[in-house]
This record gives sequence, C-alpha cells and structure tokens, in this order.
Amino acid sequence: MTQTNPNPLLPAVLDRIDADLDGALDRLLALLRIPSISTDPAYKADCARAADWLVEDLTAMGFDASKRPTPGHPMVVAHAGPDAGADVPHLLFYGHYDVQPVDPLDLWDRDPFDPQVQDTPKGRVIRARGASDDKGQLMTFVEACRAWTAEHGSLPCRITIFFEGEEESGSPSLVPFLKDNADELAADVALICDTGLFADKVPAIITQLRGLLGEELTITGPAKDLHSGMYGGAAMNPIRVLSKVLASLHDDTGRITVPGFYDGVPEIPADLRGAWEGLSFDHKGFLGEVGLSELAGEEGRMALEMLWSRPTCEINGIKGGYTGDGFKTVLPSQASAKVSFRLVGDQDPHRIREAFRTMVEGMIPSDCSVSFKAHGASPAGRMDTSGPAFEPARAALGDEWNMPAAYVGCGGSIPIAGYFKTHLGMDAMLIGFGRDDDQIHSPNEKYDVESFHKGMRSWARILAALSAKT
Amino acid sequence: MTQTNPNPLLPAVLDRIDADLDGALDRLLALLRIPSISTDPAYKADCARAADWLVEDLTAMGFDASKRPTPGHPMVVAHAGPDAGADVPHLLFYGHYDVQPVDPLDLWDRDPFDPQVQDTPKGRVIRARGASDDKGQLMTFVEACRAWTAEHGSLPCRITIFFEGEEESGSPSLVPFLKDNADELAADVALICDTGLFADKVPAIITQLRGLLGEELTITGPAKDLHSGMYGGAAMNPIRVLSKVLASLHDDTGRITVPGFYDGVPEIPADLRGAWEGLSFDHKGFLGEVGLSELAGEEGRMALEMLWSRPTCEINGIKGGYTGDGFKTVLPSQASAKVSFRLVGDQDPHRIREAFRTMVEGMIPSDCSVSFKAHGASPAGRMDTSGPAFEPARAALGDEWNMPAAYVGCGGSIPIAGYFKTHLGMDAMLIGFGRDDDQIHSPNEKYDVESFHKGMRSWARILAALSAKT
Repeated sequence: MTQTNPNPLLPAVLDRIDADLDGALDRLLALLRIPSISTDPAYKADCARAADWLVEDLTAMGFDASKRPTPGHPMVVAHAGPDAGADVPHLLFYGHYDVQPVDPLDLWDRDPFDPQVQDTPKGRVIRARGASDDKGQLMTFVEACRAWTAEHGSLPCRITIFFEGEEESGSPSLVPFLKDNADELAADVALICDTGLFADKVPAIITQLRGLLGEELTITGPAKDLHSGMYGGAAMNPIRVLSKVLASLHDDTGRITVPGFYDGVPEIPADLRGAWEGLSFDHKGFLGEVGLSELAGEEGRMALEMLWSRPTCEINGIKGGYTGDGFKTVLPSQASAKVSFRLVGDQDPHRIREAFRTMVEGMIPSDCSVSFKAHGASPAGRMDTSGPAFEPARAALGDEWNMPAAYVGCGGSIPIAGYFKTHLGMDAMLIGFGRDDDQIHSPNEKYDVESFHKGMRSWARILAALSAKT
Repeated sequence: MTQTNPNPLLPAVLDRIDADLDGALDRLLALLRIPSISTDPAYKADCARAADWLVEDLTAMGFDASKRPTPGHPMVVAHAGPDAGADVPHLLFYGHYDVQPVDPLDLWDRDPFDPQVQDTPKGRVIRARGASDDKGQLMTFVEACRAWTAEHGSLPCRITIFFEGEEESGSPSLVPFLKDNADELAADVALICDTGLFADKVPAIITQLRGLLGEELTITGPAKDLHSGMYGGAAMNPIRVLSKVLASLHDDTGRITVPGFYDGVPEIPADLRGAWEGLSFDHKGFLGEVGLSELAGEEGRMALEMLWSRPTCEINGIKGGYTGDGFKTVLPSQASAKVSFRLVGDQDPHRIREAFRTMVEGMIPSDCSVSFKAHGASPAGRMDTSGPAFEPARAALGDEWNMPAAYVGCGGSIPIAGYFKTHLGMDAMLIGFGRDDDQIHSPNEKYDVESFHKGMRSWARILAALSAKT
C-alpha cells in the first residue's frame, strides 16, 4: 500500500515510539500492578490509586490533568494541545482504568496483578488482569501522545483524555458526569480504544455495537435452609424453580422466549450481509480455539450474525444451596442467577426488562417469591461512517498494518459510544488492538506486545491524519 | 399411664440425671466447641480432636474406649458392662460426632462453635452447630450410662458404643470398618440416636427410613471462561444446559422423570395409611413454620406420604459463572449441581444412578460434556417391630414422656440401620429426641434442654427395660 499520510512530523514520532518501547512497557506494568476491580467494593482504594497514577503520568507529560470525584469511582480528565481558537481538530479519547474480577483465581498461572512480559510461541505478551481490557489499550494512546510531545514539544491537535473507572461495573456515574461536564468534554470526534483487531493482523473500526441489559434474579422459597431429609418432597426448592425459569428462556431453535423480545431487531441489509460474507469468517476456527465446534445460536443464522447483529440471552452466573466440597442435603431458602441480554437495532432495554420480569413472575409458584436487581441497560449502537474522521483514520490504520482496515460489527456492548452521541453530540470511532485470544474477563488475560507497539504507532498515525489540513 | 418398668435400680439413676443436668450440659458444650465438620478437609484435625474428647470421656467413665483409624475420620469404639458370658443383653449404641458445614455463616446469630444455653419463649435451648445433629443426641446416651455407672458401679447390661465421624459426608469408611470389626461390634440389637420426636412431646421409634443417592454433575462447555460480548450467541453456555437438565427432572405433576425411577416404590399398606391418617399431621403448620403453605410433591399424595414413603429428587446446590457482587458478563466454562434422591421400598440406588446418568448424558449437546461424582447410595430401610427390643423400649419411652411412643416413618436417610442388618446381622431401633424446629443443617441449630434432659432419662429407662429378666 502507498503511504496515504505523508505528514512530515510523523516519522520521528514513530521512531521515538520504537526506541522507547521498553519504557512504555515499564509504565504499563506499573499501572497493571494496581488491582482496580471496580465491581468489588474491597478494591475501592485501588481504583482511586489507578486514577491518581494516570493523573500523575498525564501531568508529567504536560496535560492539565485531574481526578474528578463521582458517587462511585473517580473519572480522570486531561487536556493538552493548542488553545480552543487554533484551527486544529479537538479529539476526545476514552478508555477505562478499571478491570474485571479475577476469579476463578486458581485457573491463573500467576498473580493477576503481578504483570510480566512473557515469550510465547505466538510472540511476546503482557500477562495480567487488564493488560488488554483496558489498561494496555488506553496506554497505546497515552504513549502516542507522549512520543509526539517529546519529539515536537506539543501535540498536533487539541486532545481531551477521559478515563472512567466503572466500565466493568455498569458505569453508574457516567451519564450524570457527561451531562454535568458536557461543555468541557464535547469535541469534534471521540476515539474509543476498547475493542479488537478483526483478525490477527487486520485492523478494524467498529461501526455496530450490541446493547446490554443485565438482570439479577433471586428466588426465595422456604424462610431458611431446610434439611432435605425432613422437608424434601413436601417443600418447594427454589433451585428447581430457578432451573425451570432459566431453561425456558430459549426455545428449541435457540430463539429467546421473552415476549416482544424481537421487536426492533432488524435483518441486516443485503450489502452488509455481502460484506460480512466477504470477510470469510472462520467460525470453526473461532470456536475451535475455545474447545467448541457448533454454533449455539438461533438456527439458520450465520456466525457473524450471531456474534454481531442478533440479540442474545446469557446466564452469566448462578448459585444456590451448598456448593462446597462434599455433599450437604440442604433444601435451600434461596437461589439466584445473573442474566444478560445483548441487544441490537431498536430493541428497547427498558421494555425488555419489564417483559422479562413479568414472564419470570408468571412462572413463580405461590410459595416462592422473586426479586430483581437491575444491572445496566444500554441500547445497541450504529456509527455513521460518512463522518469526516472515519476515512482518514481507516487509511492511517491501513498504513500501519499494511492491510485495509475493516468496518465491522462487534458483539460486545460499549454504551459510551451512544452516550457520547446523545449527551455530547459527537460521533465515536471505536478502534482497538485486542485479539480474540486475549482472554479478557478470563484467567490469564494478556495483550500482545505487538498490539501494544503497533497500537501506539497506529494512534500516532491517526493523530497525524486527523490533524492534517485537507 | 402406669409405670411399665418397675426396675428397682432405675429411680436412683433418674434422680442422679436430674441432679447432674448442669454437669451434663457443661460436657456437651465442651464437645460442641470442637468444629468437627467432616465434609471439609480443613477440619480434619478437629474431627480427630472430637474423637479424642469422646475416648477420654468414655474412658473416665470406665469404658474400654479407643480411637480407631480409618482412611477418613476415625471411629470411636468403647465397651463396658458385664462380660460376654453374663446373662444380660448386649446393646450397641451408635451416634456420630461430625457435624454439617455452617455456611451461610452470616445467617447465624452467633459463632456456631461457641455454644450457649439460651432462654427462649419456647424454653431453654442449647445453640450450636451439632447441638441436635448429633452431638447433643449421642450425649443423651453417654450421660445415661454415666449416671447408671456412678449410681450403681456398673451398667445393667453389656454396652458397646460406636461413634463415627463421617455421617455428614457419606460415611465412606463405615462399611469397610463394620466388615473388618464385625465380631467386636455385633450385639443383640442396635440403638441409633439420630432422629426426632414425632411431635413436640410425642416420642417415636422410626421403623421406616428413606434411602439416599447423591450425585454431583459438572457440565463443561468452552475450554475456558469466555466474554459473553465476544462469544455470546455463538458459543454454548453450560449453565443453560444445566438448567435444562435440572428443569427436566420433575414433570408438571411433581413426578420424577428418571426412567425406571418408580420401580420398586410400594404403595403404603392400608393399615399403615390408616395409622398415618390417625396421626392428624398438620402439614400447614409444618410448612408454615418455614414460611411455606403448599405441598410441593407429587399431586394427589398426602403430606406424610411425601415426607416418609414417596421418593424425592432435590437439587441441593448449584453454581456456575460469576456469583460475586455486581455483574460480570462471563460465559463460563463450567456449571455444576449437587442432586440427591431419597429412595423408598425396593428402589435400587445403583440402577437409579445409572438411569440418571444416562438420561443426563442424552441431554448434553455435542459441544458440552458432563462428568459425575458419586456421593453415597443407600437403599431404603424398614424395621421389623416384632423383634424383642421394640415393645419394651416403646413402653419405656411412654413412661418418660407420658405419651405412647409412635412407630413412624422418617423422610431422612440413616443408612447405618441397613448396614447393621446386612453386615452385623442385627436389628436397629432408631430413637431420638430432636424437634422439627431444631434447624439441623441450617443456621442457628439448637437442641432443647428438655430433649437433652428427657433424652438421658429415656435411655436410662430403656436400659432398665431391655435389661429386665422376662
């Protein structure tokens, strides 16, 4: 491919990134040592410590950076670059410094918060919780800014960095914070680095995201745990009720049975279907990497539809009764499950929540009760690729990876993109360098050093491309 | 009622039991302080300590007592009374010194192993894990022996005491130990104290017990935990599979669907049905005490049938995925459940185990696998009340409680009774003083001081009755 972006300042920045890779790795490892698990209150101080670390690092690079309190974990906001009057674009970069829990801990090969750069048959990787999701990814942008500033004394455009610390726990403070600080945060376009490459060496810009609805249900039967020898056969067992409820969520063809669930689910347009077919997605290989072979979704749908454009219902956790070693003939008082729905098109998360609750309540026998706890509700999102940033960014990614960047869908839910549009009026570009085998949300999470290194270089190129006068 | 057993040695023994109640409580509390949870390997040393405590106590009373090693937790065996040649009966007394786990610990009002005698609106109770099941009960017999020996210098018959430490964890060492020590343990009749009164003040001898089959199943889908945003919709979720399996175990009428499960399940004879109807069992009150009101068993069966003579299937525990605070959109690799079946009549636990496993295996999709772990398999038991010990013991109980003792069924499973018959050739009498509200296997377990006190007196009377020359 020809270089599409001959910005004269860029080569020195790329050289500096190459020369300082070890320094960048050291800084990332320091951030990874902080166990900023946002969903677990025991790690509250660690989340604040991660925010402090970022503020200090950004300040040292010349950003006007600060930690902003919220009712939950703090935000980090930092500004740098030419003043508002200058004729350069204003970019907002978003990432999150919080990480997923680490259980089951016994499946980790090492302490999740003792990061290490390891040689593997597939290349060097950074091994730690958060290496890929999202500390390694957010640091690709920070390091690109560092190299640019170090080399040229300033950034080529106005940049606002915005890090949150609650992405892995439903982002309860995010929308109020965006509303309260809309003037400060609104920019020409948002850059979000929390996604992956399309394939091993193929960069991607996500243009379609699924929404997410989380529900926790607890079924209560007897007022206390009972002895199954004394009560078994006569007293209702809440695990039995919960099993019936959960087993009813999918029919035999894999369709979800919540009434009205498919309202607003579009069929993908013919051209997009053609484009996805053209990606020659290897679903056997994708599933084979995790020990599976059969598509488990709705009958008659292609794999990328299941992953990107069809809604899902997953049971993310279940517990009830005695689950320790050995056996205990208990008839438990309670059983609970966490259920999430990935949403597409115009599905309304709030209507689905109500329909789900009504359906479950209708299945509870008279001697049991059910309670619900809401865990987030975000609709699906779709980006407008005709915006001015998309094609230059796509070209810049192509320069770095020697492969045209793909516009792709994503099965995950990154509600921030929708919030930026709704509350700050700006489009978002989702660009990331994770890989399918990064084991995010799983034991032994890693981030390829190549992803980290080429990610930094990608952002340097994108900054150059978006700052170029056209 | 007239006193049916005018043994001249008895009144002084009963008086001594009354006078030494506080001493007996102190001794029980000392035993209750030892956290002998047999199912959890972390408490192995505590189980051994409970056995040591009993050996020491029995030795001090004049028993020839010893701790016997097994591959699991030790047995305690102790002998006392006239030599083998004497013309007195030989009784074997069985109890277990191990206790159930204590979770959920946050539902206990106090440390489960810091026992206390408490005043309650219903009378004084001993509050601790194991107070009723089975330390308080086994000590009723030990204290009766202590009083008899202290008062008269010797016991009125030959007594062998046999305590196990694995009853709450499937008794893996029991049958081999009985086989290896059959000559030492065989007696004229076995006395087992691990059951309850029929009603608040109505003593009972259990003549019918349900069997127990325990199974743990683990379903594995993906080779590791996955991110539901990345894989959800395409990859099979083992919790979904497990829910379908568990939901299928009962049909809509409450019948269990395992093929052949009801083979060998008898209808209760007309006379027994009449007797049970005569007990005027208050199932609304029974269920109401634990916050329930509706019978959950097979349609058309009376409550005592559900509890005593019909087989059951209960899910005792379930786990999978993320179950901590907050939410984690994991698609887990594994999900597992503990399932138990209470068996009656001639149901064959081994055939049912095979049928259950075959049924489950038939429900597992191609991308998942299932593994099973066996947790005990004992058939149901029925006692022959025409044996010489039953009527005298029943009369002795009637003397103590001023109510005729009932011959009743029991929903629980006490396989030891069957093992005594099979391996030692002796019948067993199951006599205990627990109450329905003892919360055994639950938080805040208790044993009424009245149960403890009148239990000791009951055993003193039974020893007198069974030793009487007829």
